Amino acid sequence: MSRVAIIGTGFIGRAWAISFARAGHDVALWDQAPDAPTQARDYIAGLLPDLAANDLLNGHSQDAVLQRLRVTTDIDDALDGVIHIQENTPEKLEIKMKVFSMLDEKAPKDAIIASSTSALLPSAFTAHVEGRHRCLVVHPINPPYLVPAAELVPAPWTSPETVERTAALFRSIGQAPLMMKKEIDGFIMNRLQGALLEEAFRLVEDGYASVEDVDIGIRDGLALRWSFMGPFETIDLNAPSGIRDYVERYEGIYSGLWPSTQRRAEWGGPVLDQIERDRRERVPAEKLKERQEWRDRRLMALIAHKREASRKIGS
Amino acid sequence: MSRVAIIGTGFIGRAWAISFARAGHDVALWDQAPDAPTQARDYIAGLLPDLAANDLLNGHSQDAVLQRLRVTTDIDDALDGVIHIQENTPEKLEIKMKVFSMLDEKAPKDAIIASSTSALLPSAFTAHVEGRHRCLVVHPINPPYLVPAAELVPAPWTSPETVERTAALFRSIGQAPLMMKKEIDGFIMNRLQGALLEEAFRLVEDGYASVEDVDIGIRDGLALRWSFMGPFETIDLNAPSGIRDYVERYEGIYSGLWPSTQRRAEWGGPVLDQIERDRRERVPAEKLKERQEWRDRRLMALIAHKREASRKIGS
Repeated sequence: MSRVAIIGTGFIGRAWAISFARAGHDVALWDQAPDAPTQARDYIAGLLPDLAANDLLNGHSQDAVLQRLRVTTDIDDALDGVIHIQENTPEKLEIKMKVFSMLDEKAPKDAIIASSTSALLPSAFTAHVEGRHRCLVVHPINPPYLVPAAELVPAPWTSPETVERTAALFRSIGQAPLMMKKEIDGFIMNRLQGALLEEAFRLVEDGYASVEDVDIGIRDGLALRWSFMGPFETIDLNAPSGIRDYVERYEGIYSGLWPSTQRRAEWGGPVLDQIERDRRERVPAEKLKERQEWRDRRLMALIAHKREASRKIGS
Repeated sequence: MSRVAIIGTGFIGRAWAISFARAGHDVALWDQAPDAPTQARDYIAGLLPDLAANDLLNGHSQDAVLQRLRVTTDIDDALDGVIHIQENTPEKLEIKMKVFSMLDEKAPKDAIIASSTSALLPSAFTAHVEGRHRCLVVHPINPPYLVPAAELVPAPWTSPETVERTAALFRSIGQAPLMMKKEIDGFIMNRLQGALLEEAFRLVEDGYASVEDVDIGIRDGLALRWSFMGPFETIDLNAPSGIRDYVERYEGIYSGLWPSTQRRAEWGGPVLDQIERDRRERVPAEKLKERQEWRDRRLMALIAHKREASRKIGS
């Protein structure tokens, strides 16, 4: 297998390290803070038993995965011989600009340089980079070792070959790349999430629904089919003759809702007091960490279920 | 257990009949078309083996469930002794108005009269009804015997007792009621779905993403956590200190997307040609029925998984 480098080993970087290492790649861990890579490796070591128990290490032993993680404080050593660099430094434009200059200067000329940013467009921090054709964004939903989707976002100057090689690499490690054709703020997933959340906050603010009603409507309703089909396939199968039939039957209903969606609820306004109260009644602040661990166990179980259902029933 | 009546035995009515019968209720099937209830019972009989195989009959035998379905062409017989009436006639205002007058006149005075409508507000077809305090909408996602969520939508004159009794009944048969506080077009679930679809159509129309990219982003991304938590709990757990922390960190990013969401893509416009072509390449028209059967098998497997994960890991 090949070498990859993780630049910035906070929560996103260390999560990517797991995705690469369990697929058999040798992963160099580097961070501006000299102690961070060792902390990241220790953190990963603590996660491996749960991942192994859920058959999420591709059949490799925990030891084998851990041994593929190489901690280094020397950036030249980190980049030596890599085919792919995954950058996870703070979401500050000036930092990303400096880091991308540095990476382009030091990395092997044919290595791809990808940023995990969710907040910045790739054109914003790669325009000045000599090898900008090999730069792009690969944005995960955290943690990528559990959630397969990852957005590939090219800048205008990113070469098609860069996008194709990156897609092939991420597919090969078990991620599901979304291939954006051009950049836009929020990319695809945060735009879709944002659209849903805007309506959710509005429904609560306007007194139609509680926080829990919205969550029931998604978790016991819409997201069941979305979780194995996505929204387009869902509506394609929801009218006898497919998506055109669906649009002909129902677009009028949806377009009728449009005028009432033209106002943003201020998420941080008074409605947030109510939402926070509802949530803290269900999960008190001191139980949030425990609930996050529950979420990760449920997510692992769901991933295992989807793998099995795809094998038995088809995908 | 109690008696309920299904008025209108098309796809929604027959699906509701399964939900009630497997919970032990005696279900009268009545339709304007005299042959329809028998067809509905035959259809249900054909579904029961699959439901039994997926342990979705609450431990009852197929025969026991089938014997709880009573076909009748006599409306007085259908309504005799019922505690709940679920109406599923065509989505035409004048039809619903007539049917509700008729049901209110003939039904036991303490029976609740619920409509499965997705398109009409309860105030639109119950205002003239003498017993309008006992009328409301209970809108499922089809099929309700697989998808638990159901929206309870009161008209302004629906009594709180009606809403409470209806919620208790639907909880007791294993549905997950969303308790709307007042009516609005689209209710909760179609508004949330519509918000997501508007962004999805826009992203495809504007050339940022393919149909498949959107579906990947949801099915291999966002909907994984949504399918067992919903969107509010998801963001509540996505910042160290909960939802207020999340809003403080990220509302700026989402509000920045708002201006670029102020245009509706015309779903039935030129973009539909592209979307339909993409979909038909993946699932040809002649395979749609087979794919719908695949969807239902995946949905049953997912429901079974959620039940088991809730038991083992918690919900």
